[in-house]
Amino acid sequence: MSIDSATQNWSTAERKIMEATYRAMLEYGYSGLSISRIADQFDKSKASIYYHYDSKDDLLLAFLDFVVDRFKTDFAEGVDEDPNSALTTVIEKLVPLRMNDEEFQGQRVLIELRSQATRNDAFREKFTEINELLVRTICEIIERGIENGTFRDVEAARVAEHIVATVNGSTIDRVTTDRETAPAAVRISLVSYIDSELRSHR
Amino acid sequence: MSIDSATQNWSTAERKIMEATYRAMLEYGYSGLSISRIADQFDKSKASIYYHYDSKDDLLLAFLDFVVDRFKTDFAEGVDEDPNSALTTVIEKLVPLRMNDEEFQGQRVLIELRSQATRNDAFREKFTEINELLVRTICEIIERGIENGTFRDVEAARVAEHIVATVNGSTIDRVTTDRETAPAAVRISLVSYIDSELRSHR
Repeated sequence: MSIDSATQNWSTAERKIMEATYRAMLEYGYSGLSISRIADQFDKSKASIYYHYDSKDDLLLAFLDFVVDRFKTDFAEGVDEDPNSALTTVIEKLVPLRMNDEEFQGQRVLIELRSQATRNDAFREKFTEINELLVRTICEIIERGIENGTFRDVEAARVAEHIVATVNGSTIDRVTTDRETAPAAVRISLVSYIDSELRSHR
Repeated sequence: MSIDSATQNWSTAERKIMEATYRAMLEYGYSGLSISRIADQFDKSKASIYYHYDSKDDLLLAFLDFVVDRFKTDFAEGVDEDPNSALTTVIEKLVPLRMNDEEFQGQRVLIELRSQATRNDAFREKFTEINELLVRTICEIIERGIENGTFRDVEAARVAEHIVATVNGSTIDRVTTDRETAPAAVRISLVSYIDSELRSHR
């Protein structure tokens, strides 16, 4: 996750708060995060944040909306490509062979926020939305490919669920273990899965 | 995860502390957990816990060792079966169609602990060990299957990495979203992946 790309629906003030939240999350993690520390990131008072958001959790839920918007922008890029390239592009984005430091830190922050979803219904709703978005995006690419004859006539939703589970499992492995060769193995196996499931004509 | 099966290497006192830790984790989650609350679970003083463990994190790292031992016991059950049944058994255990309440709560606790691994090296080592154990267990089953001609001659480690990533992604989806049909879709797709990757003879 990087937050440098433009997203609509956000006022300049809100965007600045989101960017400050992101920087504070990178530095302190979920457990060390506070409105004061977010305010420190952009020389504003706590009051100016509370003007927009009632609480730390309220702000973090908005932050997850910001992440969702960013995903949407990111995925929209490949939408005009042919289904084959579009699917390859999505996989390359979701399971990069290497993550730069900011991407790694961003995924770490997302896992910390996701862990809150185990006991907090509002966070749970957001992560339901994020996973639905990923599955739907991939499902639509597969359906386009089936329609135009690029892919075999598979159950698109099931294949999409498989890809998203594999991607999410690989990401959590990457940010919570020291298994450095695992992401590349999963990336190769995922490409091979997609080849045999969608592209091979028997 | 259930902790009712016997594990060796643990004194009675340690086992009692682990069971109390587990119950306290189920009730309060990682963030609400304290040595006092663990002591309350089995009518012991905090001092009796500090006699065995220096801190809450020290105790939780021991708890993760306890979980690893439990995994080992659990997986050892299927080890004598033929590779086909052994692999099916492991998949059924790792991606159950339904989780009972205790299994669900146990997975929730594991995700909360795993989230600590993003910033704590000792937790990170434990989750590296847990994922290595899963991959190695599945890899060995696949290698046995290749040797005795049950499975095709694939790169066992790569297939094992794929299965573990898919399993972990499915589990985190289950405990952090409300996507109730997703686990069954992943289970079906995983069985189909294993069939086409290992069992089909083209």
